[in-house]
Order: sequence, then structure tokens, then C-alpha cells
Amino acid sequence: MAKQERAVRTRHAILSSAARIFEERGYQAATVSEILATANVTKGALYFHFPSKEHLAEGVLHAQDLGVPVPDRACKVQQMVDTVVLHAHRLQTDPMVRAGVRLSLDQQAQGLDRSGPFLRWSEVGIELLDKAKAQGELLPHVVSAETADVLVGAFAGVQAMSQALCNYQDLPPRVSALLRHVLPSVVVPSVLASVDLTATRGAAVYAELQALHPELQALHPQPQTLNPQPQPAPAG
Amino acid sequence: MAKQERAVRTRHAILSSAARIFEERGYQAATVSEILATANVTKGALYFHFPSKEHLAEGVLHAQDLGVPVPDRACKVQQMVDTVVLHAHRLQTDPMVRAGVRLSLDQQAQGLDRSGPFLRWSEVGIELLDKAKAQGELLPHVVSAETADVLVGAFAGVQAMSQALCNYQDLPPRVSALLRHVLPSVVVPSVLASVDLTATRGAAVYAELQALHPELQALHPQPQTLNPQPQPAPAG
Repeated sequence: MAKQERAVRTRHAILSSAARIFEERGYQAATVSEILATANVTKGALYFHFPSKEHLAEGVLHAQDLGVPVPDRACKVQQMVDTVVLHAHRLQTDPMVRAGVRLSLDQQAQGLDRSGPFLRWSEVGIELLDKAKAQGELLPHVVSAETADVLVGAFAGVQAMSQALCNYQDLPPRVSALLRHVLPSVVVPSVLASVDLTATRGAAVYAELQALHPELQALHPQPQTLNPQPQPAPAG
Repeated sequence: MAKQERAVRTRHAILSSAARIFEERGYQAATVSEILATANVTKGALYFHFPSKEHLAEGVLHAQDLGVPVPDRACKVQQMVDTVVLHAHRLQTDPMVRAGVRLSLDQQAQGLDRSGPFLRWSEVGIELLDKAKAQGELLPHVVSAETADVLVGAFAGVQAMSQALCNYQDLPPRVSALLRHVLPSVVVPSVLASVDLTATRGAAVYAELQALHPELQALHPQPQTLNPQPQPAPAG
């Protein structure tokens, strides 16, 4: 295994443990030694990659990014939809993504700047909406920053509701419903008519990315069956 | 003071302390003895009203209800909008409402059923949307349950984003933006044109309710200036 590949795997092993511990205990109660105990790496390796609990949490928050973007689409609204539904699909299937989203909503996480993921997703949205606007796909009154913030905020809540009610079992249809409720106020009708908003779109986009980037296979898990009970965390 | 009024005040004092402690520590770490220590009531009184930590949390979750509904409006869409913006106003101004919303998003709250507030708000939405539909205010394709869930979920996230970014300072314009993005897909255009969606509507509805119900004055605080820094919780 090349040195760089090993470093990537070590980093990923540490973040997976951190994600699990943060999810079980919450940021405040989690300790670096618990994370170290489950990561199966040396103390030196852990501190080399992440000097503190805050660095570990920021690593988990950043792991929401897949690292590979949705491929360029001719229709920028479709590209934005694909980015949203891909994130929903990864939330359902990847514990690290779930941990990142939970951390951003963990109001007891003192000293952790939780604004980062909101602002980063907002920027992604603004960029795609600006491109869509330049191509004439949006209605003339649309302000990209406002629409991006509505989508980012609304998505955060829809996923939290799906988590609280059924541990993400119904996330794809809920996200599809959100998009069907917001996009008609934003997108030119003739463009919207050709956009795929179905609840299976997220899984299809993920499969497309896996075919394009075989290295995703190693670091990101396959879809798994989720327990329909919310938050099956062990006793703290 | 009449006996019943005293009981109401005692209950409210206990819930205020519970709200503060849950907000500072999170549900998992909070203890009944901490709540007792700050509530300034006897142990007997506390256990009479709330036999366990879970009962205290459920009390705080229920305190999201103001107890008095938005007055009947001729336009049911306006009544629904008023219900939403009133809740946003109370989130900004009433620590108990904030604590309730935080508890419903506290994923570390083991053994606490957090689905209640989502389901209750959803029922409120369905009832108002059904009435709006019967009056011909909604577009023909609208399914009340789906739209209500989108609004409830999206609201939960928009408030979380506002909290993480600026401790609720910008909540009213964010909620107004959410409604302006969702309602055009749901409401007949000629009805929507007469609906007040401005960011100051929540404060106006609250003032209207205070005038109608002077007893609100005693139990619910006046608008206060919030610290623009998110989560100023003391060290745990």
C-alpha cells in the first residue's frame, strides 16, 4: 500500500471512530481517549492527524463532503437537485455523514463552530443557482443567496424530522416533497418539467458516481438497512 | 392568590428551571436535583407535578404550545402563516420555547420520545390546510399531510440554522423567506396576494394575543434582546 493511501485509510479509521463516539455520547461528553480506544491506531497517529477533540469534530463535519462533486449537468437546476438528493442518500447510508449532520445540530457542543456546514452548503447552493440563473433557468425575482439558505435550512430540518420519526427510513420521499414545494417558486416552469425530482434519484446519482470513481467503494459503505427505530444509541 | 393560580405558577417555575438546565446540559446530562436546586420549590412540589426527568422534558416540550391559539381568520392560509410566524416570534423571545425546540432536536436524549412536537405541529398544519382547501384557497393538487410535513420539517431546520449562525437574530426574515418559497406551490395566487408574509407579522400576532389574553403577560416574558453569539451556555 502506498504511503499516501495508508495515511488516507488511517485518517478515515480515526474519523469513523470519532463519528461513532460523537453520535453515541454527543460532542460534549465524548473524549479523545474513547475515540483512540476504538480507532485501532497509535496515539501518535491520532494526534498527528487531529491534535484535539475540536479537530476531530471538524474532520467529521467535513466528511459530509463526498470529495467528488455531482458531474456537470446541462441543466443546473438538475445538478442542484442531484447534489441535494445525493446528500440525502448518503445520510441514509453512511454513518459518517449522519454523525456530521448531527454534530452541526448539537446545541450542547460548546466551543465547536457549527456554522461551517450551513455556510458551506449555502455556498454550493449559491454557485449552482447563479449558474442556473445565468442560463435562464430561474424566475427573474430569485435571489440566489436567499433561496440557497431556504434550501439548506429546510433540508436540515426535514432530515431531523425523518430521523426523529423513523430513523431516516422515509428521508428520500420527504426530500422529494421539499423540492416539489420549493422549486416551483424558483424555477421556470418549462425547465422544472424536465427535472427529475423522484425519490429514487439520490441512489441513482450515487451509483453513477461510484461507476465514475471506483475509489469511493473503499472508503464509503454500501447502502445498509437502517433500524426503523430512531436513535438506537447505547446507554451513555 | 387562588390555589389553582399558585399551582400554575409553581408548575411554570419548575418548567423554567428544567428548560434552563436542559438547555445548558442537554437532556442526557441534566439531573432532577439540579433542576430542583434552581426552581426554588420543595422536592414534594416538584415530584407532585413531574414524577421523573422524562416528565419534566415532556413538560418543556409541551410548553411550545402557547395555550391560546391564533384567532380565527377568514383566510385560513393567513391563519396558518400566523401560527408559524407566532411560533418563530416566541422562539426568539421565550427561553422555554427555545428549550422545547432544542429538546426535540437533541439526538442524545435517550429514552425521550422526540417525535411528539413534530407530530403535533403536523396535525395543526393538516387541520388548517384542510380548512383552507375546503374554502378553495389551495391549488387542487395539494395533499394537506404532505405540505404540513414539509412546513414543519423545514421550519425546524430554518430555526436551527438561524440559531447556529446568529442565535436567532435573523429568524423572522428567514421564516418569511421559507414561506415565500413554499406557499406559491400550494396557495391559489389570488389568495396568496392578500396574505401578509412580512417579517414583522409574528410580533404583531403576539401583541394581538396579549391584548386578547392579559393572563399571557404573567407567564410569558416580554421580547428580550438576544446575544448575537450562538449558544452562550456556561461550561458543563
